[in-house]
Amino acid sequence: MSHAQDALASTYDLMPWPKNIQDTKQILPITENLTISIDGPAQDRVHFVATSFLRRLSGRTGVFINSGFPTSAKANPNATIKISYKNEGKLTIDNDESYQLNVSNSGATITANTDIGALRGIETLLQLTSNDATTYYFKGASISDAPRFVWRGLMIDVSRHFHPVHVIKRNLEAMASVKMNVFHWHLIDDQGIRIESKVYPQLTDLASDGLFYTQNQIKDVVAYASKLGIRVIPEIDVPGHATAILTAFPELGSKPGATYSVERYSGVFDPTLDPTNDNTYVFLENLFTEIAPLFPDTYFHIGGDENEGKHWDANENIQKFKKAHKLKTNHDLQTYFNIKLEKVLNKLGKNLVGWDEIMTPTMPTTAVIHSWRSENEGLPKGGSLIEAAKQGYNTILSNGFYIDRMESVIKHYQNEPIGDIQLTAEEQARILGGEATMWSELTTSETIDSRIWPRTAAIAERLWSQKDVNDVDNMLKRLDVISYRLEELGITHIKNKAVLLRNLSNNQDISSLETLMNICEPLKIYSRNQGGTEYKTFSPFRLFADACTVDAKDAVKFNRLVKSYMASPTENTKAELIVYLKQWSKNHETFSKLEKTPLLNDLDSLSKNLSEASSIILQKLTNTTLSDSAKAQLQNNLSVLKQDHVDVEVAMVESLEALSKYN
Amino acid sequence: MSHAQDALASTYDLMPWPKNIQDTKQILPITENLTISIDGPAQDRVHFVATSFLRRLSGRTGVFINSGFPTSAKANPNATIKISYKNEGKLTIDNDESYQLNVSNSGATITANTDIGALRGIETLLQLTSNDATTYYFKGASISDAPRFVWRGLMIDVSRHFHPVHVIKRNLEAMASVKMNVFHWHLIDDQGIRIESKVYPQLTDLASDGLFYTQNQIKDVVAYASKLGIRVIPEIDVPGHATAILTAFPELGSKPGATYSVERYSGVFDPTLDPTNDNTYVFLENLFTEIAPLFPDTYFHIGGDENEGKHWDANENIQKFKKAHKLKTNHDLQTYFNIKLEKVLNKLGKNLVGWDEIMTPTMPTTAVIHSWRSENEGLPKGGSLIEAAKQGYNTILSNGFYIDRMESVIKHYQNEPIGDIQLTAEEQARILGGEATMWSELTTSETIDSRIWPRTAAIAERLWSQKDVNDVDNMLKRLDVISYRLEELGITHIKNKAVLLRNLSNNQDISSLETLMNICEPLKIYSRNQGGTEYKTFSPFRLFADACTVDAKDAVKFNRLVKSYMASPTENTKAELIVYLKQWSKNHETFSKLEKTPLLNDLDSLSKNLSEASSIILQKLTNTTLSDSAKAQLQNNLSVLKQDHVDVEVAMVESLEALSKYN
Repeated sequence: MSHAQDALASTYDLMPWPKNIQDTKQILPITENLTISIDGPAQDRVHFVATSFLRRLSGRTGVFINSGFPTSAKANPNATIKISYKNEGKLTIDNDESYQLNVSNSGATITANTDIGALRGIETLLQLTSNDATTYYFKGASISDAPRFVWRGLMIDVSRHFHPVHVIKRNLEAMASVKMNVFHWHLIDDQGIRIESKVYPQLTDLASDGLFYTQNQIKDVVAYASKLGIRVIPEIDVPGHATAILTAFPELGSKPGATYSVERYSGVFDPTLDPTNDNTYVFLENLFTEIAPLFPDTYFHIGGDENEGKHWDANENIQKFKKAHKLKTNHDLQTYFNIKLEKVLNKLGKNLVGWDEIMTPTMPTTAVIHSWRSENEGLPKGGSLIEAAKQGYNTILSNGFYIDRMESVIKHYQNEPIGDIQLTAEEQARILGGEATMWSELTTSETIDSRIWPRTAAIAERLWSQKDVNDVDNMLKRLDVISYRLEELGITHIKNKAVLLRNLSNNQDISSLETLMNICEPLKIYSRNQGGTEYKTFSPFRLFADACTVDAKDAVKFNRLVKSYMASPTENTKAELIVYLKQWSKNHETFSKLEKTPLLNDLDSLSKNLSEASSIILQKLTNTTLSDSAKAQLQNNLSVLKQDHVDVEVAMVESLEALSKYN
Repeated sequence: MSHAQDALASTYDLMPWPKNIQDTKQILPITENLTISIDGPAQDRVHFVATSFLRRLSGRTGVFINSGFPTSAKANPNATIKISYKNEGKLTIDNDESYQLNVSNSGATITANTDIGALRGIETLLQLTSNDATTYYFKGASISDAPRFVWRGLMIDVSRHFHPVHVIKRNLEAMASVKMNVFHWHLIDDQGIRIESKVYPQLTDLASDGLFYTQNQIKDVVAYASKLGIRVIPEIDVPGHATAILTAFPELGSKPGATYSVERYSGVFDPTLDPTNDNTYVFLENLFTEIAPLFPDTYFHIGGDENEGKHWDANENIQKFKKAHKLKTNHDLQTYFNIKLEKVLNKLGKNLVGWDEIMTPTMPTTAVIHSWRSENEGLPKGGSLIEAAKQGYNTILSNGFYIDRMESVIKHYQNEPIGDIQLTAEEQARILGGEATMWSELTTSETIDSRIWPRTAAIAERLWSQKDVNDVDNMLKRLDVISYRLEELGITHIKNKAVLLRNLSNNQDISSLETLMNICEPLKIYSRNQGGTEYKTFSPFRLFADACTVDAKDAVKFNRLVKSYMASPTENTKAELIVYLKQWSKNHETFSKLEKTPLLNDLDSLSKNLSEASSIILQKLTNTTLSDSAKAQLQNNLSVLKQDHVDVEVAMVESLEALSKYN
């Protein structure tokens, strides 16, 4: 971050941070008389988003804006906010999303080459909303902005848990608010078919539990996304992850005579389409031909991941086929399959996208490689992204953006796609961008927002903003504001926490549970749901771990305080630490007053040990020498707190321990 | 309430209260092995609701139930919960909704004549969920239940503010959870057309702001309601409330040459269809013919309310027409219009329903009279309901169930439809039931749930349970439980309060705002939005008044305490009063620490006067003699608190005053 930006980033709560910004040292008051005009062709998108801008602005300020809708520039040449653009944008990777925004005392102007660029500018303007004690206003600024990457996506897995249309729509709105532009819709997996096929109604009849989108709903979502300047990429994951498809069509499977039923657990499963069966291609061609027109985007994701080929190895005919076609490995066989699918997709005007397993020596470079594996999956550091770009593939990055791993936003924010690697301009251009991936094995519609947000906003910045915009502290400060503003779009990441705690407590006082929640985080990196068999798709996801989120509020703050105190102890920091320790030391008393329930009992040990440990550390911190028994007690408390509790970890236990050892 | 029921009502949190209940003194534990079987024809509805029952049960108890779905009785003859019924119910007013439920140590049985009766039993069983410190279980009971009235409805006005499909669906689920069975969908009014017409696309093109249901969405909602055993009645309000229709088709209006535009304010407006124009009937017949098949129900609501006939009086041709047809009054002319519509509807297999203005001497008794007016609207006490029944009309009651008037749940609960009036059995049978009416001039999708719930659950009980189930205190106790359980259906009445306060405070500590909210209620009986012109449809409804709800929690409790204390002062009650007064007296200090915003400034006087008044009363209560200046100060504080503040009233100010005078 340049020096000038650095200074401004402390006063503007913009996310993603724009390419160029100057402070005009002016402010534009938000009054009842505020109006918006639009000048440009094909105004549907801008009219829609500008109307929504007016509602959100009015809702957050309470200003009774007289004009409820934008008008044409002709009808209102003196509008407060003048939006103009030259062309209707196309939802492609070549679209121009740049814009200029200028806010002065007398008004605001947004200019762009395309309507979609104008949408991005409108969101920036809304983020300039500010106030003092007596007025709401837009902070003055002169901004010239454009994205670093053209592909800034969010994938939502609707197979493991189904997420209805309104959940998708509110997340599209949230995406647009941080300038994301690709919604990748993971529609078919082992746990269910979520898209209606009229050609093959058996798919949803037998493998959806009634939870799927009708084609009308798909069209509705795609149209909605388009209004927000968001492309929609469907994913039909084949040839693995095929249990649901094979539940309807077992004859297309690689295990002769097998029957299948919708998978209720999580993991990598054996059922796989038979790539040597002509009917497999007939089926897929028919299905793709039916589905493709619902998605105007030219990219189509065929998955291709995690096919372990067990049923291929066990099937004699498939082995013979491999020999006959000189396919040495299962990878070669899958590439044979992929190339056939690519031809089908090309006929339908689509480019094939697949997870990085599809990148084999024989796979044509017309495919787009979706990079998801790296060191964690046994690949070299940097993973497949750079490799793909060097080999001539267009490519997008999800490795490091797996938000279902429940890791800190800081990690995702620092997941720089290219880093210091030297690439030619051509190679660099092949790196289209990236996607946050919301795999939903452990995520229902009640909790999905708190798994996606606010972390995905930081990923949006990583993909939009320049590489040198990387100050973590500053990002965290801005993220706080952006996060709570998402509530105006109906995002439930904050409000549903209390819902879950009320349920846990049987509608008793939840304050002691909130205290616990604010220091606990769900188990990370798939250590919740070991082996994929602790939870079924219909297991309860209204537990304490579901109320907890990554970057637990008080844990984050406490960890920083302890770090700062250890580095240079001050009375101020100490006082702040004592506030936390006092709160925690008293918490078990409050918790214990609750009428017991089985769900609360599960938290008893966590609550008790936290209070005991905090009390003892508090003694130590206030200069009381600890007795041997107190020391022993503390060791015991800390060792309990270090264990997993009901699928959460205590996210500041190491700070507690450090403090307990500090002299 | 009979004595036996009275005793049980203190231990069972059922709502609506069943017709007959006995305590079996047993409990049925809820374990992982719980299963459900279904025995009966056409299992779609029961399968759907029983599956949802399993999810809700698992979600509220955390029990990992192994079987995610019910099975047939054949497949599982030893199910924990056995559901059986004889016939597929019909969604008509003749349907049998009775059921028997028996819960013992060894299992539960639900038996009914129809699947819809079984659904009602499933909801009762879920309400028996209970727990001690170590297990969750169903309370044992032997219940035989049936509704008092066949028509137990909720009307939602989607014209004044549009409420999307998912908002409607979650409210349908909430309705079903308290055994309501009619959703009355107010689709067209002055402020917008909310249903797609393919015959007349101009309607939504010109008069919906893009906010309407497609026909596919209508079908989806109707099918969803059917699965829950809920009938759907559309309302197309004519000939008044016609501004939106006339925006698209001004030539059908009664004011020659006039043009119209969608109304942005609230109230009763002049635009009215011309009942003397043949094209009006052509239009309505085409529209009804298109819309009617979307709604399988045989009832169709044509509104008919609040036509003040100003444009009729001013139109010479209409006056001539009246003379030519010997129609003396505008009521006669409207009846002429209504009778023509009834013929159209009869051809479509529909019965006409209209608001009580349609009940004129010449209106055939085949129409259903929807009673909404009473003393408040200048009619005799009891209003039109009894009158309609006596005159031979079937009739339903909404007078007294106008939840948008923002009155206490107690008032609605006590709104006994028949009371002590002597009716013949025939007359009595004509009183079909009633409907809560959610007019949405001041209600957005963010606040509608808190306007409907929990009060509508008490109305549901009034319409389902026997007349002698009328103990207010007991109802309030049960309502507390029922209310928070609605959160599991996604009802936002509790959680959105904090969202609005976070917005008001700009994401600062909301505790002082919560304290204020818990003693404030939105202005009642249409005194918010005086003249209908303070708010437009797109004005902000994220204000303090929108966070507040009827029956403000702390105000209700404090009012009771004061009443009890005045009647017989005890030290215990005094101590409880002191807790509240201390909280309030300190609140302004907390409030004052917030960084000021214009929206917070609006609350400053309320906050300050509350704290001052509470401090002084606290002094008085703790036996300190008040100085003259303190007394004067208190008078001043109370007089300020008695005024309206930002569209709310302080709901315990009279108790404060009473306490200040008490010696």
